[in-house]
Amino acid sequence: MKRIITISREFGSGGRELGRRLSELLQVAYYDKEIVTEIARRTSLSEEYVHQIIEQRPLMSFPISIGRSFYPMPDPLMEQNQAIYREQHQLIRELADKSDCVIVGRCGDYILRDLNPFRIFVYADMDAKIARCRERGKEDPPLTDKELKQQIKKMDKGRAKYYEFYTGQKWGDRLNYDICINTSSRSIKELASVLVRLIDGSPD
Amino acid sequence: MKRIITISREFGSGGRELGRRLSELLQVAYYDKEIVTEIARRTSLSEEYVHQIIEQRPLMSFPISIGRSFYPMPDPLMEQNQAIYREQHQLIRELADKSDCVIVGRCGDYILRDLNPFRIFVYADMDAKIARCRERGKEDPPLTDKELKQQIKKMDKGRAKYYEFYTGQKWGDRLNYDICINTSSRSIKELASVLVRLIDGSPD
Repeated sequence: MKRIITISREFGSGGRELGRRLSELLQVAYYDKEIVTEIARRTSLSEEYVHQIIEQRPLMSFPISIGRSFYPMPDPLMEQNQAIYREQHQLIRELADKSDCVIVGRCGDYILRDLNPFRIFVYADMDAKIARCRERGKEDPPLTDKELKQQIKKMDKGRAKYYEFYTGQKWGDRLNYDICINTSSRSIKELASVLVRLIDGSPD
Repeated sequence: MKRIITISREFGSGGRELGRRLSELLQVAYYDKEIVTEIARRTSLSEEYVHQIIEQRPLMSFPISIGRSFYPMPDPLMEQNQAIYREQHQLIRELADKSDCVIVGRCGDYILRDLNPFRIFVYADMDAKIARCRERGKEDPPLTDKELKQQIKKMDKGRAKYYEFYTGQKWGDRLNYDICINTSSRSIKELASVLVRLIDGSPD
């Protein structure tokens, strides 16, 4: 049986790390930023721009095409967003057809629903998400807790909007997932080793 | 460290079976209907009545006291509901203080929050819940799928109202739980054996 694992995650909840660890334990492919890179290649758009669109934060002032004009339609920005989604949809199907894999974000659970993926939603308390973001230590300049909280909320709002727009489903609604896991006071490494048993099925 | 596991569950999702199996695997006490029996004993109310109150379905026509009048207050029914909750609250604290245990329903996650319980929410797709209810085979007379669906929804609405009234929290909101698990196409036995590892912590 095909093993496709999709991970939806709140920003700062450790969903990406969980995905990476699961792919290592299951010895299957892992797709995350690779998807952005490939869509950018296929659409001739910059990776940064594709990433912005996928997180539903279109930067209006950002160059919308590189090197050539793209889908000259009445509403080029909207059309371009749709084009990116179409590419993403097709790419994710191709990747899942090719081999077992872990796919982080990008509506993978919905796009691959007919393949019966194991659908994980990863979340955490706000304090834990703030702490995790700080651990990553990529803020420059440093943000206050309040600013970081606002940023986390904004990111999640963007993900929710994007997901709901393309799937017609509510992001984070438990019925869209096989398991929702709170990472607040847990080691992601430990979680991964337990979830693998759930994915593979453990002996009765 | 104390091992307290609380299980909240949608009607027909297999939460009770999961709780029972976890208590067997962890070799800890299991409290479910025992709580109703003990509250009934303490309050001199009938078990059936206590059960109705806890599921937020007070039967107005049901005898509200047995043998003696109970809390003669201006609003005796409301007062009685509160009294049942107080007894439940105290009983659950006593049980958790006494030994490690699994507690199904009854706001256990909230009442024992300072003991840092492992909080599980069990849910399933409607079709799976209908199928599980049929397997239990306790309907008399037999219900149509539509009637069963209505009953399941009504039960869950009652549980949600009860929980929200006494805890001020939203029943089923993922942030109130450590894990939310969809039992739709899973063996509860298998789930229990995996969750035990998560509760006990598995080696890194």
